[in-house]
Amino acid sequence: MIIVMRSGATEKEVQEVCDKIVQLGYKPHVIQGVERTIIGAIGDERGKGVLQSLETLPHVEKVVPILQPYKLASSEVKQEKTTIAIGKDVVIGGKKIVVMAGPCGVESEEQLLETAEQVKKAGAAILRGGAFKPRTSPYAFQGLAEAGLKLLAKAREKTGLPVITEVVDPHDVAVVEKYADILQIGARNVQNFALLKKAGKAKKPVLLKRGMMTTIQEFLMAAEYILSEGNPDVILCERGIRTFETATRNTLDLSAIPVLRDKTHLPIIVDPSHGTGHWRYVAPMAYAGIAAGADGLLIEVHRKPEEALSDGPQSLKPEKFAEMMKHLKAFAEAADRKL
Amino acid sequence: MIIVMRSGATEKEVQEVCDKIVQLGYKPHVIQGVERTIIGAIGDERGKGVLQSLETLPHVEKVVPILQPYKLASSEVKQEKTTIAIGKDVVIGGKKIVVMAGPCGVESEEQLLETAEQVKKAGAAILRGGAFKPRTSPYAFQGLAEAGLKLLAKAREKTGLPVITEVVDPHDVAVVEKYADILQIGARNVQNFALLKKAGKAKKPVLLKRGMMTTIQEFLMAAEYILSEGNPDVILCERGIRTFETATRNTLDLSAIPVLRDKTHLPIIVDPSHGTGHWRYVAPMAYAGIAAGADGLLIEVHRKPEEALSDGPQSLKPEKFAEMMKHLKAFAEAADRKL
Amino acid sequence: MIIVMRSGATEKEVQEVCDKIVQLGYKPHVIQGVERTIIGAIGDERGKGVLQSLETLPHVEKVVPILQPYKLASSEVKQEKTTIAIGKDVVIGGKKIVVMAGPCGVESEEQLLETAEQVKKAGAAILRGGAFKPRTSPYAFQGLAEAGLKLLAKAREKTGLPVITEVVDPHDVAVVEKYADILQIGARNVQNFALLKKAGKAKKPVLLKRGMMTTIQEFLMAAEYILSEGNPDVILCERGIRTFETATRNTLDLSAIPVLRDKTHLPIIVDPSHGTGHWRYVAPMAYAGIAAGADGLLIEVHRKPEEALSDGPQSLKPEKFAEMMKHLKAFAEAADRKL
Amino acid sequence: MIIVMRSGATEKEVQEVCDKIVQLGYKPHVIQGVERTIIGAIGDERGKGVLQSLETLPHVEKVVPILQPYKLASSEVKQEKTTIAIGKDVVIGGKKIVVMAGPCGVESEEQLLETAEQVKKAGAAILRGGAFKPRTSPYAFQGLAEAGLKLLAKAREKTGLPVITEVVDPHDVAVVEKYADILQIGARNVQNFALLKKAGKAKKPVLLKRGMMTTIQEFLMAAEYILSEGNPDVILCERGIRTFETATRNTLDLSAIPVLRDKTHLPIIVDPSHGTGHWRYVAPMAYAGIAAGADGLLIEVHRKPEEALSDGPQSLKPEKFAEMMKHLKAFAEAADRKL
Repeated sequence: MIIVMRSGATEKEVQEVCDKIVQLGYKPHVIQGVERTIIGAIGDERGKGVLQSLETLPHVEKVVPILQPYKLASSEVKQEKTTIAIGKDVVIGGKKIVVMAGPCGVESEEQLLETAEQVKKAGAAILRGGAFKPRTSPYAFQGLAEAGLKLLAKAREKTGLPVITEVVDPHDVAVVEKYADILQIGARNVQNFALLKKAGKAKKPVLLKRGMMTTIQEFLMAAEYILSEGNPDVILCERGIRTFETATRNTLDLSAIPVLRDKTHLPIIVDPSHGTGHWRYVAPMAYAGIAAGADGLLIEVHRKPEEALSDGPQSLKPEKFAEMMKHLKAFAEAADRKL
Repeated sequence: MIIVMRSGATEKEVQEVCDKIVQLGYKPHVIQGVERTIIGAIGDERGKGVLQSLETLPHVEKVVPILQPYKLASSEVKQEKTTIAIGKDVVIGGKKIVVMAGPCGVESEEQLLETAEQVKKAGAAILRGGAFKPRTSPYAFQGLAEAGLKLLAKAREKTGLPVITEVVDPHDVAVVEKYADILQIGARNVQNFALLKKAGKAKKPVLLKRGMMTTIQEFLMAAEYILSEGNPDVILCERGIRTFETATRNTLDLSAIPVLRDKTHLPIIVDPSHGTGHWRYVAPMAYAGIAAGADGLLIEVHRKPEEALSDGPQSLKPEKFAEMMKHLKAFAEAADRKL
Repeated sequence: MIIVMRSGATEKEVQEVCDKIVQLGYKPHVIQGVERTIIGAIGDERGKGVLQSLETLPHVEKVVPILQPYKLASSEVKQEKTTIAIGKDVVIGGKKIVVMAGPCGVESEEQLLETAEQVKKAGAAILRGGAFKPRTSPYAFQGLAEAGLKLLAKAREKTGLPVITEVVDPHDVAVVEKYADILQIGARNVQNFALLKKAGKAKKPVLLKRGMMTTIQEFLMAAEYILSEGNPDVILCERGIRTFETATRNTLDLSAIPVLRDKTHLPIIVDPSHGTGHWRYVAPMAYAGIAAGADGLLIEVHRKPEEALSDGPQSLKPEKFAEMMKHLKAFAEAADRKL
Repeated sequence: MIIVMRSGATEKEVQEVCDKIVQLGYKPHVIQGVERTIIGAIGDERGKGVLQSLETLPHVEKVVPILQPYKLASSEVKQEKTTIAIGKDVVIGGKKIVVMAGPCGVESEEQLLETAEQVKKAGAAILRGGAFKPRTSPYAFQGLAEAGLKLLAKAREKTGLPVITEVVDPHDVAVVEKYADILQIGARNVQNFALLKKAGKAKKPVLLKRGMMTTIQEFLMAAEYILSEGNPDVILCERGIRTFETATRNTLDLSAIPVLRDKTHLPIIVDPSHGTGHWRYVAPMAYAGIAAGADGLLIEVHRKPEEALSDGPQSLKPEKFAEMMKHLKAFAEAADRKL
């Protein structure tokens, strides 16, 4: 940490801060500048909120952290890219772009199975579908719960596609883990630490969505919660942040991809369906996500978007999805990947 | 809902949308404008995501909701302001401004009891203190858990102050409810629907903090989750939203107070400690909060902020808190309230 | 500046950065930390973008500025609060709260004079009114230009109230200065540096509005442009920033007031009309602004808001304005000010 | 426009609003809903702020605009994509991707000519370079002004590359137009309406950058200012918006590309240099921009970024730029374009 003293701080005041730094177990190092005195506090500052509290001392102007606060998620600690095998055929984070597709919510057996066959045919490697739905309104469709999980298992059996589905309550981790190949933690739960800790003890990979309000640093700290509980298989998913712009449902922050690529070894997936909120914009943003360096996509597909119980406006019809997959190939190859 | 057709939509296309509206159980009403045809879908739209899905029909430009989606939280449904009695002496939402104060985290018996006595003496009506701490870093102090709850109960016994404390896991609601007078749900859990539902079944009032990226409408929908489970005692707390400005930790959105006053009957509390993140700015924003019409304040007070295990920079020393309380009186009276 | 080296930087690489620092005229000071080496660059960094460019050197992780980049606007350079006399009766930044009120746009002589009399009677000290209107749409009312300025001068003559009006083009500064007592620079022009420079050469005080996306630091840098051209009379105006919240037109950032009070000596005005965008919310936010420590208010008042050519929704009727002024007195006194 | 009445509005109150609508020249159309009465105001609402002012009538809840407020910029008014010829060899908005590259600021003849040769060799079609620099600090390098323009003209003569350069003051439009092939209006001036009007009278194409705080709708309204003055050659440039994320300088909003493609016929350029602020992230975001459907790129290239007087951190070295151009080809082809 760097402690910046207020202008005009006396030697005695600087000394007091140094004493405090020593008392907290760090080594102070003073630099006398032209306009300000600054003090470096030498030592591993990560996870130590107490150093930040020095800001309340009378002659301290501000405290500036130097280190990124994550360790296990950091590309400094682990330099080779993490790859995660799902079932026997799919690897996330490898050469091949992985596309996960399916309906927002599991609504019925017929709906799910038909969609599963269609996305498989178009080239999807993993089936998505929500059984526990986090909905803004208590009066909206909340999902089929375990009945939905069973339908997902059935769809996997029929199509051979591994399945990904969301878990919203720490105490549902066990049941979701029983049926799913990948646990999804949604944007609204990215700092639900009780849930992250439970997912960190699960035996299945976790796809963690960035929250609407989550900085990249906080996002990696959320991943660190899962990693530090012993689960090394975390997949990061950019799905749009909240900004002032209302032409799209969220603002898909594709620049997060090269930033994350620089800072972490974990694989990165893009969700252009939630990112844009409108089916018209999904395909171009899917291409852009792969061009920016993502390892895969998460796409909402619905047979009849105009009747979807949730997220209809952003769902692709199966034929539009197939068309997108056809065009995606050239972008994957331009990015030196395969589809 | 209003369905706006794309420019140039034919009569047949308009009819198709009307048919769909009928099929979904609403009554269509067409207005032929100069540049656009719009269709009103008459009926109660609240909680019906499916109407929004009409946006995917080929000639629909957009779907505009007309009603606010909350019911029980709405000032249309219940016009008189809600008041909530805490213990036998405190009423939230009445004529008297209620100040809740105490440390961010319960760190030790001595720290808590000393602070409790001090905030009581200065005029606080309720003691705050965290036993379960949601922390951005898994390596940071996570709170004393049930041991912390017991210390809070002890402090209540000694001082007579009711206590408020946070709950972060749905399955801790029972234990927190056993010790606390008010359950707090934090900003990061404002859309943790599993937790909201459990809190909706609790027998204690719930203070719900607005999330960093929660619109006022979503905030009221989160309150609606609690209300719709049967718990009528919800206290709303504005604690700052996330913006581009970094001079303060968050941007305290005081205009949310008159907006909420217009739209809901629930009491409104302001937290200037988290809202600003710096102790220097806490007192002016506390005054401003009361001037804007809030029913009370939530303030972090620590004996030695420079040694606090969390939120040190934004904690007031007890003597600064006492000074603030002294000045607050005139602002409360200017707002036609009492302290 | 602090230069943070990437993890694993060698001594030679550190030396290269030090050499570059010397070459740019600064003195390097190396601190060898546990996880990182950091280098302090000693010297006055303000306005020197070139130091930031060191970030492109291969082993540099980031460059962290230490000093605030403004000088003349800083409370370090000038500690006593600036007060600005307007005409012979009004002082901005003194003990007395100054209220500036009037219509958004000057629409006609009758409208302006009637409103001027009414706001004067209610206690306003300065008359506002726009002659040059910056409008989002080229098809919207653009103001009466010099004819509007003449009406303002007439209203001053009749009522004795000094007038404030906006200037939008650098080459109109001369004509506006001829008629107005205070030049206003609007939110959209806060970084129109050509305009700021011209205003810095004017002989009249300048009220500078914070932009919708301007940080407090950038806001003070914009003031610095005016100050550094020789005009010491700059009044800062908080009028709301743009956030994700749509219940209000902007988000009035009242915490900017205590932050600015800490960092600058310049007087601070609040505009709750633009800040909220709805007349219902103007009065509570005006009270809150004064409670937070502002030196005055800028309020839109229109005889018939429902017929206003601009900003109708946020304009108070004269009788509502008078009512607000009556309540404001107690808040001013609670803040140890006068009205 | 749709006028939504407050709950419980009487027939008489609805009638009063209808009368007002008629008085303003529109035709009212009432829909009696279950929970609300709404009134459609039929007529062309664009540019008519006065209709919005109905919001101040006592029983009106809100006024909802239906039409997009732009006309000339709209893809409804002109359906075929606009193409703009620059010099005799370059067309913006055609099949070929156009790359504009060069230094942020023109610093010296040698620097500019050397860079111009290098970017030409790598495949750039247009040379960029700033002579008038809008800088946050009045103490920072402000550009070489007309001397810089002359150097740009010289570079064009030597290399054959058309040049683009920024204009910041309405009264410099004439001189900039004399030397430049394209006038650039920067992000901070996107709502500098005096400048937009002057650029609308220029005989050269205008590249208009989206502001940090500008919605897509406001961005198109800014373009409308230029178009409505008679200049049809407007090029839109997405360069990042301001959000809470600080890992990048701005958040490059690539989803603006498909949204703009849907709503306007004007060509779209992406600036990943300002969008990310770090040279490491420029190439992936350039690829992503083309994949999302942009017509070209604007890229900062500097011989010695570590010595750049402005924007060093985000400038590519010429060899990095050449490498990027090599990879870009495949992405252009995947997007069915040429480079």
